[in-house]
Amino acid sequence: MDYRSILADVASEVQPYIGRGQAAQYIPALANAELGRFGMALADVDGDVVGVGDWEVPFSVQSISKAFSLALVLARDGEGIWRRVGREPSGNPFNSLVQLEHENGIPRNPFINAGALVVTDRLQSLTGDAAGAMLEFLRAESENPHLAIDQAVVASESAHGDRNAALAHFMASYGNLENPVADVLHHYFSQCSIEMSCRDLALAGRVMARYGVRADGSRLMSRREIKRINAVMLTCGTYDAAGDFAYRVGLPGKSGVGGGIIAVVPGRCSLCVWSPGLDTRGNSVAGVAALDLFTTITGWSVF
Amino acid sequence: MDYRSILADVASEVQPYIGRGQAAQYIPALANAELGRFGMALADVDGDVVGVGDWEVPFSVQSISKAFSLALVLARDGEGIWRRVGREPSGNPFNSLVQLEHENGIPRNPFINAGALVVTDRLQSLTGDAAGAMLEFLRAESENPHLAIDQAVVASESAHGDRNAALAHFMASYGNLENPVADVLHHYFSQCSIEMSCRDLALAGRVMARYGVRADGSRLMSRREIKRINAVMLTCGTYDAAGDFAYRVGLPGKSGVGGGIIAVVPGRCSLCVWSPGLDTRGNSVAGVAALDLFTTITGWSVF
Amino acid sequence: MDYRSILADVASEVQPYIGRGQAAQYIPALANAELGRFGMALADVDGDVVGVGDWEVPFSVQSISKAFSLALVLARDGEGIWRRVGREPSGNPFNSLVQLEHENGIPRNPFINAGALVVTDRLQSLTGDAAGAMLEFLRAESENPHLAIDQAVVASESAHGDRNAALAHFMASYGNLENPVADVLHHYFSQCSIEMSCRDLALAGRVMARYGVRADGSRLMSRREIKRINAVMLTCGTYDAAGDFAYRVGLPGKSGVGGGIIAVVPGRCSLCVWSPGLDTRGNSVAGVAALDLFTTITGWSVF
Amino acid sequence: MDYRSILADVASEVQPYIGRGQAAQYIPALANAELGRFGMALADVDGDVVGVGDWEVPFSVQSISKAFSLALVLARDGEGIWRRVGREPSGNPFNSLVQLEHENGIPRNPFINAGALVVTDRLQSLTGDAAGAMLEFLRAESENPHLAIDQAVVASESAHGDRNAALAHFMASYGNLENPVADVLHHYFSQCSIEMSCRDLALAGRVMARYGVRADGSRLMSRREIKRINAVMLTCGTYDAAGDFAYRVGLPGKSGVGGGIIAVVPGRCSLCVWSPGLDTRGNSVAGVAALDLFTTITGWSVF
Repeated sequence: MDYRSILADVASEVQPYIGRGQAAQYIPALANAELGRFGMALADVDGDVVGVGDWEVPFSVQSISKAFSLALVLARDGEGIWRRVGREPSGNPFNSLVQLEHENGIPRNPFINAGALVVTDRLQSLTGDAAGAMLEFLRAESENPHLAIDQAVVASESAHGDRNAALAHFMASYGNLENPVADVLHHYFSQCSIEMSCRDLALAGRVMARYGVRADGSRLMSRREIKRINAVMLTCGTYDAAGDFAYRVGLPGKSGVGGGIIAVVPGRCSLCVWSPGLDTRGNSVAGVAALDLFTTITGWSVF
Repeated sequence: MDYRSILADVASEVQPYIGRGQAAQYIPALANAELGRFGMALADVDGDVVGVGDWEVPFSVQSISKAFSLALVLARDGEGIWRRVGREPSGNPFNSLVQLEHENGIPRNPFINAGALVVTDRLQSLTGDAAGAMLEFLRAESENPHLAIDQAVVASESAHGDRNAALAHFMASYGNLENPVADVLHHYFSQCSIEMSCRDLALAGRVMARYGVRADGSRLMSRREIKRINAVMLTCGTYDAAGDFAYRVGLPGKSGVGGGIIAVVPGRCSLCVWSPGLDTRGNSVAGVAALDLFTTITGWSVF
Repeated sequence: MDYRSILADVASEVQPYIGRGQAAQYIPALANAELGRFGMALADVDGDVVGVGDWEVPFSVQSISKAFSLALVLARDGEGIWRRVGREPSGNPFNSLVQLEHENGIPRNPFINAGALVVTDRLQSLTGDAAGAMLEFLRAESENPHLAIDQAVVASESAHGDRNAALAHFMASYGNLENPVADVLHHYFSQCSIEMSCRDLALAGRVMARYGVRADGSRLMSRREIKRINAVMLTCGTYDAAGDFAYRVGLPGKSGVGGGIIAVVPGRCSLCVWSPGLDTRGNSVAGVAALDLFTTITGWSVF
Repeated sequence: MDYRSILADVASEVQPYIGRGQAAQYIPALANAELGRFGMALADVDGDVVGVGDWEVPFSVQSISKAFSLALVLARDGEGIWRRVGREPSGNPFNSLVQLEHENGIPRNPFINAGALVVTDRLQSLTGDAAGAMLEFLRAESENPHLAIDQAVVASESAHGDRNAALAHFMASYGNLENPVADVLHHYFSQCSIEMSCRDLALAGRVMARYGVRADGSRLMSRREIKRINAVMLTCGTYDAAGDFAYRVGLPGKSGVGGGIIAVVPGRCSLCVWSPGLDTRGNSVAGVAALDLFTTITGWSVF
């Protein structure tokens, strides 16, 4: 297939969706994003990367980082994390506390905020510097040594972090955090505030598309293990819209409130799309539409 | 691949799981199932069907029927059903009323009981005889004209049907049923009480594996539409264990409290496994283990 | 105190509230009530009864009947009913199913619909004719042999009774009903459809104000027991507004969606007020205002 | 009545209940309380105070302080607090977050932890030193200038305060706190850690029994206002057991996990009972039993 022409077609057809929705409002640092932006990149398992639109413009990865922090923890620590976090879709908004209380401080999955805090907490225990480990890993996989954390976003997250602080203290009250709440929050806000472009994220996503093989050819984890991360992305990767995303797009994916979404076509390629306008469930309107068009054109859903 | 030898390997390795769990207890007609039973069948998209163990013993399909009733309604009526039922995983037990109340009588997906009642209600409106339409369809796809409804199970379901009656009346109170509650319940209990063997169900599942092509070569629905049913099965097909099933097995599947599970390897084959011992979430213990072993041996998860 | 002049003052000051809110909308038989109606009656423990406005116009007692059915069951059967229904305020709308599911089919109190169904079910077991026993009791206490059940309201309740049917079937699924669902619903709808005036209800309420002594001088239950019914009325008698009613009015009371409210000043008098316009929580706007004015003027709250 | 002999009778009959239940386990400073302790005091509105058992032994007032902080805020600030906290019974444990999320950060009543944090927050805004204001007020009402805050309990509360921190951050995320979370928590933990005896608390409770008249004869608030605090105590004062407490005891009361309970007989007297063994809902087992016996002997329930 000619990737370049596919992306051009997608970019053309997705125009009506660009600018719809609204930027994430919970922190000032994201609220002013330009809604008209749109970019998309595709990285082939063999290494080619192509893009369209604003595909080289960095944005805040936000929750997309959760897919990679989960991968790092599973790679270093094995399946133990599943004693502290479930892997079932949540049926609740990403920052809900209701489920936590009904299930004694065990988050339903690693991609809702509470679950991601547990994963970051574990990564902090394993590395002593969770955000640093994330940055190093993403630099290596995206082959971009210039990736950095946007400290203004970190500061904004911290200043408006009461909901996440509530989640962290709540889990701590059940004994489900290993590190001080303040440390976990800092590293969590920092990993969410890494700036990457569609190009960077598509390249980083190859580790999922290549069944666990890293950019340098080494193996992050076994084929079986990476398939399981793909499974968690498909069932839980787009907040309370995972069922709809599976229905329309049919690919493992992970979205962030910065407007980015990564998606994986196992064995073929990884994708990243970005447009800041979000729907009511926190996913990029144009991003979901673009991935829907992509799988309609290519027929490459996992189903 | 030599299907027969794969199934033999699975049947051998799954032995420790057979007899674990307990049979469905909510109706006497299922409570006395023999826990030691185990069968598995695989139907190739080209038509071959092989099996192992009790693969030709009929059992009560129960919720497996929900995958087929959804397919029939989508085939006849298009996407309109999604105005009356969602397609998100539920995060609640299959017969919960809590979510219904929070979301004004719209069930989260077509595979929890409330959602399946809506689908049956629609099929009743479309056909005038929902259970009859289901039986006819399943007879055709399984190429077994002897399939029948076990009226003793229907009677037992009805006699112990207060929870389903509560769900149906509750949705009716929101105006989300088109037919009288008693009719909907009767056709729902009847479709759940169809008796089929692993062989029958593997053959019937080919319509999903063959991307919508029926046993007689005609097309039930488009490739795109059948992929969407597979997506709903993967995200919602195994009650509140869909995330775990995706993680361990990685195939679209639908389970029933009779102890059966169907699974689909898109483009390759359909599977059915049966063993009556259920785990706490209502899925066959040995059935899930067998499918886990199958995808481990073959590497055929969708991820 | 001069009761007549107090009621006249209340009736005068409550004018701005009459006509506010809306009539109960869930059944046609109540939806067309005249919002401008207002009546109030006071029955002294010594037997005098005075009234103002439409105090002799019959209306549908609806949930006010729940206070009397509870009294009858406690009088005949003692404390056993508390194994099947709690006595805690609910924190949920009167017809919610959520709590039932979280607490295994045990309603939180006898005044939410689910709890009242359990009480009616028990009264049916005790008498063989729950609605008939209620009618006979209320005729005796109100000294009005002409009280009757409005069969048009019963029919309307039945025709729109899906929510109550859901509650009843749900409790039956937990084994918390002794009689068939259809029978329990019929007697419940019938007791709710008794027509009484403010005069009738104020007289009937004397049994609470007189610490258990009936109209004929016989004793329904002990002083201690009737105080407990007053306690349940105060904490649970006005749906999810019981705290607000206790705060503003400070008397045990029980409201109905027909627009009536009874209240008890223990040892002094019983009251009934009626005006069909309901607030969002199902209590008569002018009725609550009138009782608030009454206790402000008299200082007779229990606190 | 001879108060001394009534208390002696109660103390004698309550013996079987002393030692039952367990001390509050959530902080070490309370977990080692001596379960065999029991004290009870009664303060007449005319000033006499009598007691029995350990009635002069100080204990941690804990949530009993919430009744007084509410009174102080209402006295200084009027009804405005009701825009930030409801007054309905909660139907949930005292430290639940579920309701907060469903009702957008507005706690259901001022006696669950979340609501008490809002009241303390407001008192902090009004006084600049909420805990100091509480201490001063309680010293004046109990006529005991030696009352003090147990700093070891404050430290223990802080060290194990994750649940309360979660509640406070959660409300802050909805904009329902005026002061920094850390300040609110400190003053809340401090007011809960005041040490008082049954004698002290019975004397302090006279302000409710005397319809708002303070120990020095000045008026804290109007008769009408203090009746409303009594109403809130009756409907919400004993966590999720308020209905049961109203049923059995029938008096406005407020319990604390230190094992104390105050109760008010409006116009007559105030009571305090203490015994550290708690039931599963957080109320003193022997304390509730003693108050139940007291109202049975005296007939002094408000109903």
